[in-house]
Amino acid sequence: MRPEVLAGPGLFGGLFELKGFKNAVLVSSVDGVGTKIKIAIALDRHDTVGVDIVNHCVNDIFTCGAAPLFFLDYIAMGRLSPPRVEAVVKGLSNACQQVGCALIGGETAEMPGLYAENDYDLAGFIVGAVEKENIINGTNIAAGDVLIGLPSSGLHTNGYSLARKVFGDTAAELSKYYLELGRSIGEELLEPHICYYKQLKPHLPVIKGLAHITGGGFSGNIPRILPEGVTASINSKAWEVPPLFRLIQKEGDIEKEEMYRVFNMGIGMIVICSADSASRLVKELPGAVIAGEIIKQTGKARVVIQ
Amino acid sequence: MRPEVLAGPGLFGGLFELKGFKNAVLVSSVDGVGTKIKIAIALDRHDTVGVDIVNHCVNDIFTCGAAPLFFLDYIAMGRLSPPRVEAVVKGLSNACQQVGCALIGGETAEMPGLYAENDYDLAGFIVGAVEKENIINGTNIAAGDVLIGLPSSGLHTNGYSLARKVFGDTAAELSKYYLELGRSIGEELLEPHICYYKQLKPHLPVIKGLAHITGGGFSGNIPRILPEGVTASINSKAWEVPPLFRLIQKEGDIEKEEMYRVFNMGIGMIVICSADSASRLVKELPGAVIAGEIIKQTGKARVVIQ
Repeated sequence: MRPEVLAGPGLFGGLFELKGFKNAVLVSSVDGVGTKIKIAIALDRHDTVGVDIVNHCVNDIFTCGAAPLFFLDYIAMGRLSPPRVEAVVKGLSNACQQVGCALIGGETAEMPGLYAENDYDLAGFIVGAVEKENIINGTNIAAGDVLIGLPSSGLHTNGYSLARKVFGDTAAELSKYYLELGRSIGEELLEPHICYYKQLKPHLPVIKGLAHITGGGFSGNIPRILPEGVTASINSKAWEVPPLFRLIQKEGDIEKEEMYRVFNMGIGMIVICSADSASRLVKELPGAVIAGEIIKQTGKARVVIQ
Repeated sequence: MRPEVLAGPGLFGGLFELKGFKNAVLVSSVDGVGTKIKIAIALDRHDTVGVDIVNHCVNDIFTCGAAPLFFLDYIAMGRLSPPRVEAVVKGLSNACQQVGCALIGGETAEMPGLYAENDYDLAGFIVGAVEKENIINGTNIAAGDVLIGLPSSGLHTNGYSLARKVFGDTAAELSKYYLELGRSIGEELLEPHICYYKQLKPHLPVIKGLAHITGGGFSGNIPRILPEGVTASINSKAWEVPPLFRLIQKEGDIEKEEMYRVFNMGIGMIVICSADSASRLVKELPGAVIAGEIIKQTGKARVVIQ
């Protein structure tokens, strides 16, 4: 049941009536889009970063099993540009609508002297809720469980500092066309972050753990959900690394280890479930692959990439 | 009753168990400290802006009668400076502790190219809750009610762009000593935003409306809580305008109207209550003054400053 959104005078942010939960646990997260915003600014295209930040935040709280309730944004600009704010909010609003999340408030600040005239930053804040008894905390993950990988759409919102070092971030540099991408590097880098909430929500009863592959890659994110005594063994040959990542590795002359530490390498979300459930999930989730398995921990590593 | 803070693996932001409410309405707000941050950066003093943003947010949601539950911060820096982050978080943490609010999560982003090496921005997100039947929405405000003004500590977090235009914002300019302030203009401008939550909470049963005097001053903030048909009549002679505001007006050669539109003029919070309750409140709230009254609306103005 969707809670109601209330509004009223005295409203600075938003009022949200929490309904339909027995023992609600609120799950919140805050994030920015990192220097992906520099790409949007350079290309003067502002309708995607809002999608990025909403989807990033929705995925983050969904790793605990939480449904998104409401979202607030912070936009700070060197000089207030109403068309830009409108484009950013359009992205926020569309992405919120996709998952039934209320865009309940926001702050737009003009801060000359802190931001260059055409620069801006964007942060997002989300609150979701999950029944206490349904929190996903990974405690029942065991050796023999399977890691399912869901495809990312590109870098999502991580690794942009390194990508900008490799390709540059001026409009001219970003307009360079790459045959293997079928479009310019700028368009490729602006591709919005995928939201996994809607496709995974029906499968919550069989999901033992979720890892949103953001900054830190597999080894930075999977251990958050692992109980003691187990290791995630990733089979990197199980999926084809998308052309963008191969291009970054080649152009930047970057070692494989660093690639897997910084980037999602084509997998934006890892779902952990029993071997029994895995084959059905892989069939029902578009592009899903068996990306590895949970094994008994022997050494120190919580994640090994084969 | 204070809800419990839960933590667990898979934690990106924070988990917060909502307990002890019958019909909880969540009240949220997001804000920044505006260009007050430029003063903190120029003076290399970073332990006050965290207090500013928490107190600002707590006051904002308290205008609906909400108690603060949890807070998340977003800090974005040109170059990551752990001592600065620590100082900012110390301010956030102390201010949260004062009001029993959980500092539940945060994001620290290093964004070279967007922020100058020594610059940073700070945004805060708060979630509070109020019983649905106790929401303060101003509906029972009527002619004859009284406006009580509570003293501010200075500009709080509004009007800094104008103040910086008047005094400058380099370390040298900010170190200028003013006899009427008894300290440098920089120290005066950094004075943290006052939190009104603790002193006003015990009086909630008699409070009909609250207006947090932030950007927009009296006429920008009081109408948010006024029902139709009434006007707030402010008696500007009821309190002494603090030296800082008189200094800004003199040095900047600013008209009285603009001063009252941009600044709080020494009053950080307006409490609206019946005439019967007013005398007791003024006695019990330190520094409180009868700042005006609610009258029947005759013209277009919702706020008149006499």
